[in-house]
Amino acid sequence: MLKVIAQDFIRPEHIETVRPWYEELVAKTRLEKDCISYHLYTDQKDPGHFVFIEEWPDRQALDAHCQTEHFRRLVPLIDACQRQPGTFLLMDAF
Amino acid sequence: MLKVIAQDFIRPEHIETVRPWYEELVAKTRLEKDCISYHLYTDQKDPGHFVFIEEWPDRQALDAHCQTEHFRRLVPLIDACQRQPGTFLLMDAF
Repeated sequence: MLKVIAQDFIRPEHIETVRPWYEELVAKTRLEKDCISYHLYTDQKDPGHFVFIEEWPDRQALDAHCQTEHFRRLVPLIDACQRQPGTFLLMDAF
Repeated sequence: MLKVIAQDFIRPEHIETVRPWYEELVAKTRLEKDCISYHLYTDQKDPGHFVFIEEWPDRQALDAHCQTEHFRRLVPLIDACQRQPGTFLLMDAF
């Protein structure tokens, strides 16, 4: 099991721009056969701070997710709206 | 629904010290009546970086968790082993 936290920091003027891209990314990722869970949240103190909490069976499944058509099309669009680089954290269960 | 990410950064020489405290904290928190989910993970790149992913019905339930006997007894013990202050993030579903 691989747990992932991926965080994006979107410029205020682009928060509404990215919304449909995030919606499509979440919907299509959940249809991937190896996706265990994939949820998106927003920081209560910062509406441009978006946080994905993901679960994949292993690193290979995460890598396959990053090669999907929806990921490769949508993530660069979202990244162009960032105010600072995103972060990601790969974790094991305690 | 309130989603929480709480992160601790433990000094290398205390990673084994905190393990039973984390185990007890997780076990007892999951027994709280308002706890929806409470999971602990470790950063694959940093064994002293511990990450809780929590879900509570609302802020009142989280505040009640922070007032429990197990939280008030165990968290100060863990905090004394930190190499830097912990962080927490309160989030809403996207």
